[in-house]
Amino acid sequence: MDIRYIAKDVDKNKGVKIKDIIIGNGDFTIIAGPCSVENSEMIISTAQHVKSMGAAMLRGGAFKPRTSPYSFQGLKEEGLDLLKSASEKANIPVVSEVMDPRDVERIYNYVDMFQIGSRNMQNFSLLKEVGRTDKPILLKRGMAATIEDFIMAAEYMAAEGNDKIILCERGIRTFENMTRNTLDLAAVPILKKLCKLPVIVDPSHGTGVRDLVLPMSLAALAVGADGIMVEVHPDPACALSDADQSLSFDDFEALIKRINQVKEHFLDIREGCL
Amino acid sequence: MDIRYIAKDVDKNKGVKIKDIIIGNGDFTIIAGPCSVENSEMIISTAQHVKSMGAAMLRGGAFKPRTSPYSFQGLKEEGLDLLKSASEKANIPVVSEVMDPRDVERIYNYVDMFQIGSRNMQNFSLLKEVGRTDKPILLKRGMAATIEDFIMAAEYMAAEGNDKIILCERGIRTFENMTRNTLDLAAVPILKKLCKLPVIVDPSHGTGVRDLVLPMSLAALAVGADGIMVEVHPDPACALSDADQSLSFDDFEALIKRINQVKEHFLDIREGCL
Amino acid sequence: MDIRYIAKDVDKNKGVKIKDIIIGNGDFTIIAGPCSVENSEMIISTAQHVKSMGAAMLRGGAFKPRTSPYSFQGLKEEGLDLLKSASEKANIPVVSEVMDPRDVERIYNYVDMFQIGSRNMQNFSLLKEVGRTDKPILLKRGMAATIEDFIMAAEYMAAEGNDKIILCERGIRTFENMTRNTLDLAAVPILKKLCKLPVIVDPSHGTGVRDLVLPMSLAALAVGADGIMVEVHPDPACALSDADQSLSFDDFEALIKRINQVKEHFLDIREGCL
Amino acid sequence: MDIRYIAKDVDKNKGVKIKDIIIGNGDFTIIAGPCSVENSEMIISTAQHVKSMGAAMLRGGAFKPRTSPYSFQGLKEEGLDLLKSASEKANIPVVSEVMDPRDVERIYNYVDMFQIGSRNMQNFSLLKEVGRTDKPILLKRGMAATIEDFIMAAEYMAAEGNDKIILCERGIRTFENMTRNTLDLAAVPILKKLCKLPVIVDPSHGTGVRDLVLPMSLAALAVGADGIMVEVHPDPACALSDADQSLSFDDFEALIKRINQVKEHFLDIREGCL
Repeated sequence: MDIRYIAKDVDKNKGVKIKDIIIGNGDFTIIAGPCSVENSEMIISTAQHVKSMGAAMLRGGAFKPRTSPYSFQGLKEEGLDLLKSASEKANIPVVSEVMDPRDVERIYNYVDMFQIGSRNMQNFSLLKEVGRTDKPILLKRGMAATIEDFIMAAEYMAAEGNDKIILCERGIRTFENMTRNTLDLAAVPILKKLCKLPVIVDPSHGTGVRDLVLPMSLAALAVGADGIMVEVHPDPACALSDADQSLSFDDFEALIKRINQVKEHFLDIREGCL
Repeated sequence: MDIRYIAKDVDKNKGVKIKDIIIGNGDFTIIAGPCSVENSEMIISTAQHVKSMGAAMLRGGAFKPRTSPYSFQGLKEEGLDLLKSASEKANIPVVSEVMDPRDVERIYNYVDMFQIGSRNMQNFSLLKEVGRTDKPILLKRGMAATIEDFIMAAEYMAAEGNDKIILCERGIRTFENMTRNTLDLAAVPILKKLCKLPVIVDPSHGTGVRDLVLPMSLAALAVGADGIMVEVHPDPACALSDADQSLSFDDFEALIKRINQVKEHFLDIREGCL
Repeated sequence: MDIRYIAKDVDKNKGVKIKDIIIGNGDFTIIAGPCSVENSEMIISTAQHVKSMGAAMLRGGAFKPRTSPYSFQGLKEEGLDLLKSASEKANIPVVSEVMDPRDVERIYNYVDMFQIGSRNMQNFSLLKEVGRTDKPILLKRGMAATIEDFIMAAEYMAAEGNDKIILCERGIRTFENMTRNTLDLAAVPILKKLCKLPVIVDPSHGTGVRDLVLPMSLAALAVGADGIMVEVHPDPACALSDADQSLSFDDFEALIKRINQVKEHFLDIREGCL
Repeated sequence: MDIRYIAKDVDKNKGVKIKDIIIGNGDFTIIAGPCSVENSEMIISTAQHVKSMGAAMLRGGAFKPRTSPYSFQGLKEEGLDLLKSASEKANIPVVSEVMDPRDVERIYNYVDMFQIGSRNMQNFSLLKEVGRTDKPILLKRGMAATIEDFIMAAEYMAAEGNDKIILCERGIRTFENMTRNTLDLAAVPILKKLCKLPVIVDPSHGTGVRDLVLPMSLAALAVGADGIMVEVHPDPACALSDADQSLSFDDFEALIKRINQVKEHFLDIREGCL
């Protein structure tokens, strides 16, 4: 594997800085928020709740890649506006997905970190375009991507000049159908051994099952991930997308408390990787 | 599945017209050419050879999506120029991949059919952009795409106004490693039952093994596909990409002869689908 | 791969002889019958029908490996008795599954070929036990078996002295859920290149969908398989197992007619392998 | 799913008792030992080492299911004798694989728990035979087994009278090839929600990579598993099987120390399941 810019031993950095926070410096970072920004009230209340619980970043989709063109596609520009307002009101940086290289410049001003979704992990035009910016990038693993494919996709961005990349393991497609995807946690230590990049885990998409988010979050902590990204919604049953996997505010509070109880015992695993 | 524009019983069409040829009107169409356009001589000689053997279209990559940024990425604009020249010299229409929605307008004038590659099957911005043109589109199945995902990706384009779509089964990722992918031929009759669109098969990427191209081409014919797309190169051993799966001119001639021997006995299968 | 007894170039044989028929001598053999033997009338009528249509062998399960212990497990000894009667009445040899090494001796007298099912493909005790007999064996590929695993399982039997083995591709487990399994037809020419053994295809289990049996049978013919094994039932809607994939007598007749129309044009592919 | 004997709410038991130990009573149990018993010295020294480190059980293969008939197949009876001696010398109970229903009675006297390997997970004759004994059984998940298949395989044994079953998640087959299998840790909480049975994880076979055993063991602890089974060898480089994934004595000591540092913070997860 020809890794020139993000290999473990190249320019070892101490994580990726996003405004005042750093992901990958030895702590276990929580990114939380709804699948989609649906309206002002829900995104503000979610932003405030997750911030109050200790989340470092807010997630929220404005441009949504959906299997069907007839599913809710996100509020687009309006969603970005709402996300930015919520970010400012709750004083929490935001990450949101960019799906089109032509949107990179526009979205640049709304978000603190770009997200590249699973379906676009090998959308090389998009990778290059965000790779030419100076903004941090969250790259999600593709559903059929090998670990090598995943690393090389990150290398595409780094080769353009931007190595402020966070990798996100979010499950691969297998025959098992009780979960939406099969979360490949072994990928975390492998990625950390091969790359200098922080690695987080998405247990919401990685399982598609609300009750599995807590145990798989703890597993992500234990295996050495630098954080998790979880879906939180004020009223999961009414969510416009990903209803089955979103945590309620109470669920999220329980998750954070549990993580905080055990976190300190695992931070050396992460430090050992930096 | 919410299929509005490309369902079997909606506006049943008689195949997709590309210049003087029609794919999906009951015949078995051959699309052939190199993985990548490498230079003038090779693309012209290939165009002439495949045309003389009865291929209806020339394929050739100018923009190449490669796993690594350090692999040969195609000749880009120069490749398109060479492809167009070869097309004119050999009097054969061409298909070439578009990877970026910003390139759609430019590439429009060079090709007779756009190709959307596997890695971009759910690049919805790109799908919408080509869906707004009036040019035929070859959509390749994603490596982790279910048949439902595949159909809905085509529906994205049709919903923008362009239903001149040809679906291409090219294998899915499985644990089997003697082949590059596992060609899912059962997808062909399923797609033809659910959609009005022509369906072709790519046995070159679908297997990654030269010796398997002939038997899998015959299987594609037998299962009811409307054609195949195969990689042909004047000197496979020296190909800049996909060397292991490209046919030599002689291989290709043998393939066409074999197909021609048996083709007539299967054409009713295709007719039955129109 | 260490193949000592069944490699392509070792003791090249001309197919496997089962009573008066030979599988793998250049013809395309049909094995047909119900998933399970259910009663005397159904197995006799099926035997007579498939024989009259040109099937060379009758299949019928007496010992059934079912996912749940509470599903119909087959009629066992009684099923074997019924199968033998039907075989004699219709003058057609039979294949039936053996699941337990302790049953090999008993079943030996009832069947003309042992079947080893997918779930037992790496049940090495069972493989060795049938490998010590002189009776032909039909070995089905396991759901997660690589081609190498499959070949080595056959080698286990050959190493015990019995190389009268027919390999059966019957689909592997993938993420695609419109079919029960993904039929890996590329495995057929690969197996025939590496082994001297005949290779047949099971399009019934390989797809799990009645309408796909005909096209995938033709594809099996085209790809060079030595035959197919299909499920046929007098009244598929009432079958005690595999109702969705069983052919009715009329379906089977249509299948055989279609195969007979095109068969001669492909037999050289099979001859080329011997 | 028709689960009658092992459903979560049926005869809720407090784990499975094996001699003086109980698996599944709220503690995190370590089972350790070599892939294969190779000779007296290695199995005794391993038994003593793992016992001294706190392992509750010794594992060691005497009958080995290997892909090739020409690979080392285990020492068989001699291996059982050596295993029993080591067990007595180190005062630690043992688990070893049974592959053949005819061996159940004989092996019964040598082992404290039967192991059913992945390849035999749906060897129903074998499942029934061990299900008729009163000895605990460790059931490993098949490589292509869904969670439902896995549960129903356990139900086969329970239906025969023996519900002293421990389930072992050991990875499934996927396209990812940097690991031998993809360890499906989400299966652990799912299995514990649906069944009353203890669930352990095998990070050695689940990854096939020595360096991944520690992080995946911690993840297994965090996700709620009742224990792990790991391969330990006095000299991994010279192991007759599974050399790449076996821990040295020092590796194992490091693993145990790490688990002991954090174990207490997770035991409530397991208690909550009983």
